Amino acid sequence: MENSAFVTSNLWILIATAMVFVMHLGFATLEAGLTRSKNTVNILFKNTLIPAIGLLTYAGVGFNLMYPGEDFAGGIFGFAGFGVGTDAAGITDAYNAGYTYWTDFLFQGMFAATAATIVSGAVAERVRLDSFLIFSTLFVAIAYPIAGMWKWGGGFLNTLDTPFLDFAGSTLVHSVGGWGALAGVWLLGPRLGKYQGGKMRPIPGHSMPLATIGVFLLWFGWFGFNGGSVLSADPGAVSLVLVNTNLAAAAGAVGAALMSLNLTKRPDLSMALNGILAGLVGITAGADVMGPGSAVIIGLFCGALVVAAVLFFDRIRLDDPVGAISVHLVCGVVGTLAVGVLGEKASLAQFVSQLIGVLAVGAFSFLFSFGLFWGLKRTLGLRVDEEEERGGLDQGEHGAHAYDLAGSE
Amino acid sequence: MENSAFVTSNLWILIATAMVFVMHLGFATLEAGLTRSKNTVNILFKNTLIPAIGLLTYAGVGFNLMYPGEDFAGGIFGFAGFGVGTDAAGITDAYNAGYTYWTDFLFQGMFAATAATIVSGAVAERVRLDSFLIFSTLFVAIAYPIAGMWKWGGGFLNTLDTPFLDFAGSTLVHSVGGWGALAGVWLLGPRLGKYQGGKMRPIPGHSMPLATIGVFLLWFGWFGFNGGSVLSADPGAVSLVLVNTNLAAAAGAVGAALMSLNLTKRPDLSMALNGILAGLVGITAGADVMGPGSAVIIGLFCGALVVAAVLFFDRIRLDDPVGAISVHLVCGVVGTLAVGVLGEKASLAQFVSQLIGVLAVGAFSFLFSFGLFWGLKRTLGLRVDEEEERGGLDQGEHGAHAYDLAGSE
Amino acid sequence: MENSAFVTSNLWILIATAMVFVMHLGFATLEAGLTRSKNTVNILFKNTLIPAIGLLTYAGVGFNLMYPGEDFAGGIFGFAGFGVGTDAAGITDAYNAGYTYWTDFLFQGMFAATAATIVSGAVAERVRLDSFLIFSTLFVAIAYPIAGMWKWGGGFLNTLDTPFLDFAGSTLVHSVGGWGALAGVWLLGPRLGKYQGGKMRPIPGHSMPLATIGVFLLWFGWFGFNGGSVLSADPGAVSLVLVNTNLAAAAGAVGAALMSLNLTKRPDLSMALNGILAGLVGITAGADVMGPGSAVIIGLFCGALVVAAVLFFDRIRLDDPVGAISVHLVCGVVGTLAVGVLGEKASLAQFVSQLIGVLAVGAFSFLFSFGLFWGLKRTLGLRVDEEEERGGLDQGEHGAHAYDLAGSE
Repeated sequence: MENSAFVTSNLWILIATAMVFVMHLGFATLEAGLTRSKNTVNILFKNTLIPAIGLLTYAGVGFNLMYPGEDFAGGIFGFAGFGVGTDAAGITDAYNAGYTYWTDFLFQGMFAATAATIVSGAVAERVRLDSFLIFSTLFVAIAYPIAGMWKWGGGFLNTLDTPFLDFAGSTLVHSVGGWGALAGVWLLGPRLGKYQGGKMRPIPGHSMPLATIGVFLLWFGWFGFNGGSVLSADPGAVSLVLVNTNLAAAAGAVGAALMSLNLTKRPDLSMALNGILAGLVGITAGADVMGPGSAVIIGLFCGALVVAAVLFFDRIRLDDPVGAISVHLVCGVVGTLAVGVLGEKASLAQFVSQLIGVLAVGAFSFLFSFGLFWGLKRTLGLRVDEEEERGGLDQGEHGAHAYDLAGSE
Repeated sequence: MENSAFVTSNLWILIATAMVFVMHLGFATLEAGLTRSKNTVNILFKNTLIPAIGLLTYAGVGFNLMYPGEDFAGGIFGFAGFGVGTDAAGITDAYNAGYTYWTDFLFQGMFAATAATIVSGAVAERVRLDSFLIFSTLFVAIAYPIAGMWKWGGGFLNTLDTPFLDFAGSTLVHSVGGWGALAGVWLLGPRLGKYQGGKMRPIPGHSMPLATIGVFLLWFGWFGFNGGSVLSADPGAVSLVLVNTNLAAAAGAVGAALMSLNLTKRPDLSMALNGILAGLVGITAGADVMGPGSAVIIGLFCGALVVAAVLFFDRIRLDDPVGAISVHLVCGVVGTLAVGVLGEKASLAQFVSQLIGVLAVGAFSFLFSFGLFWGLKRTLGLRVDEEEERGGLDQGEHGAHAYDLAGSE
Repeated sequence: MENSAFVTSNLWILIATAMVFVMHLGFATLEAGLTRSKNTVNILFKNTLIPAIGLLTYAGVGFNLMYPGEDFAGGIFGFAGFGVGTDAAGITDAYNAGYTYWTDFLFQGMFAATAATIVSGAVAERVRLDSFLIFSTLFVAIAYPIAGMWKWGGGFLNTLDTPFLDFAGSTLVHSVGGWGALAGVWLLGPRLGKYQGGKMRPIPGHSMPLATIGVFLLWFGWFGFNGGSVLSADPGAVSLVLVNTNLAAAAGAVGAALMSLNLTKRPDLSMALNGILAGLVGITAGADVMGPGSAVIIGLFCGALVVAAVLFFDRIRLDDPVGAISVHLVCGVVGTLAVGVLGEKASLAQFVSQLIGVLAVGAFSFLFSFGLFWGLKRTLGLRVDEEEERGGLDQGEHGAHAYDLAGSE
């Protein structure tokens, strides 16, 4: 076998990949839990197909768009060709001191579908299945890897005088998904009955155990998402990143619980759960460049902020059933900017670079998503008809139902 | 400590063992989700006891049947004695360059119960608990390790001129369970009401979230099942195996979704879920000897095939509530044969060896299972009485029920 | 990077930390499953906040109380100051040959909240949320680390002539939680309707799938809890510990199933599940100092014992909805004492040391908990009012409900 640092680092990134895979189950259960049982089969179907499509398209084009390589590299766009292949060097440390070509592909590929999954939650309970799957496929195959290339593939955000910093993707993964979610929610409109007679009517999810399982699995997955993004098993770096990740999640729960207690006078479980995710998204950009005190501050702030953001989006009638825009877009942006304030290279120049990254990725992701959703709306249609929405997408799209708890013979 | 390759490889196999353990929870939730709520406690009880019994019997006799060692080795049968024990060399690299004796036992032992769990799903909702537990104990303690020895313990399938290839057990684990399932289903007959007046009446499962959780956990577990079967942390081998495993699973989902859309005009969640498992079972025999293009082909093919197989078995009135025969037997056989067609040593001779392995293991597993189930049918009885089946096994066998969602005081 | 043993060991302990994290989800789902659906949101909220508070308080004071360091060390009490910080040496092998300072903190911090979670199950369905969260915070921040220091931080139990042995915390984690549970249950009294007219009325849990998921996740987590407690990736030690852990869990399931069959004439799922936990708690003190035969004996004994203990506590009217006292206190004590009988250093002197540890930790944990719960009872109040208890804490404390399965529009 190869030298031991290579073996151990490669192994760690593969194990991290398995943890990131679990996030897809986390998203599936969280989204299902926070929506109504008449749409559960539809949500589970989407969340089963998205990682499958994501891995296949990433193998087909995504990986080569995101990492175009030296021959093809461009500041904004590059493409190393269709499909994946490797010569013998790709499975030794000739490819990379930390991991093989296959490990690289699989870890990055497991991230890719995440962006589409974030959109899934926001447009749930009313989007047409066919339109959404077409959107997801193109979003994961094209938009996500191009934006990712700008930093991780050596593109223009990485070659700024003060390079944009985004450790594991507060911007490149979470806000990309969040901007897509915003575009989708805007074009779709709110669920029937959400805003009636000038008032907001809460539509509670159908299973808080499912939602809780989802958030804990996402927290678990973040051990791999952030820990694996060190791209080696370096003890100091991985352990610092994981301490920051966990403290931000914990602080996010506390921040959201206190904020919801303050604003609604109730200790709100779904807010505490979203607070955990808010803290995790917030720390993802800078988990490698700050101490645990800063991680706690980011967690508390994002946890509190996500509660306010959920209430705000409801006030402006952007109906996001799971709070995906608040969690992934708002906290993704805040976490990215925080690197310019609390990171070890904090400076005005760094903050400006962070802002450039946020705006550039945001403009691209939003315009791509808006255009694509708009095109689908004009052709296939984006939204199920009113009767189907009332009866539930499980019946309408799948001819099935999620539960039979009464017991049938 | 020992040399670093030994330490890292041993650690990886132990972590893989933990992942394989999660498959038992995956099977439990998948099987519970795809059946009716009146039988849920019974299913959970079986799936809790099977891995427990599996580990204990594997420690008692299974490990020594499967790996009889040089002194006892036989082409068809060998036995190194009761119980497990080790001297000091067993916990150093004197035992093996990749892992300790204890690691070897635990990883293999975690596989063992899988075979019986596969049977459990197929015979669900009507099999007597006592008969099934007796079957499972003997199946795991005797049949599984003997068939496994034929290849992995150095038996006759491994010493063919062109050795039979089965990397992680498409045949030795999955089809062994699938043959047992076939024997059980045949002798038990269909559930009451499944085939009425010449027509097949679908009996939907009671919780699609549970079923989805099950399949995602199985996919996660397969990282360990296939990845750990490399038996070292070799970066090239483990990363290739995991790329193939994940692409086959993804392609399986897509293949099954398209096939079900084609055959039933509905995007069917339970078919997509079984498609993932079909892809995983299919790639398990050859994940180490082919490129990702072949893995995608196997996944697509098995995913589509499993849909046809489920419909076929329903047509011939073999009532398999979870589709275990279609997934584990049909795709186990196909995946094993595919090694002779798509594997790096593909040849007619290899294909013939694959066929020999499939037939030998199939004949043994089926006859063992059929004989054992037949004996139980003639003595204890194999099936609960009609009243108990209608009322549910939870009440009949356990005096319990799985849910109380109405809320009681 | 550092030398390879350091890199691999550090990585293993971080992965083990992620596994221990999953135990918090296991406790959440187990406790929710074994109680009534009207209290599910409350239970999930507690189990979401406890690990969050646990990590934050451990960072604030707990870690420095548990490992006061040489300057501050005391036999009974020491404190290295508020907050955590590290210099460069803390992230290299200058800190420790096996792991960095951050890894040390995170692994230990993930354990800390466990103790409070154990209490949570026992006092479920009637405890006030505010009082319980105050109890948990102080219990995790102060009681747990002080008792832990007595052994793991170099305190007086570690400096006995024959040092007290508790490998991964049968006493220092599980019985600490168990004593807290006993104090809470005693002061709270039984749930309304549990003991009526001199008879015990069983109150079944609302979801056996949730409970089963919980126990399997706890078993998975124990790979990290015990395996990580080796504090290195030493192949012989980790593999022996994991073999013992798994065999004890398996034997616990079998022991409890047989005992419940014997006592109640029914194969009882919840007893089998608690049997697994009983075996795991029992082996935790001595998993590193005995062979697998002894692990099986401990598992079988604890599995059978936990059934008797559950029935016993019901007889003396200590109402513990999830059996936490039986599992964590009774089996924690038995497992700790068993090290003096079956461990490789078994002797009368060792047994006496084990007894000293059990009694010292027990007296401290119980008195601390009793005093704190008593103070809360006299001030805030410990129990919700009768109307709220009947209506459920979800409505009373959170204004929410866990499920809406009927489907709403």
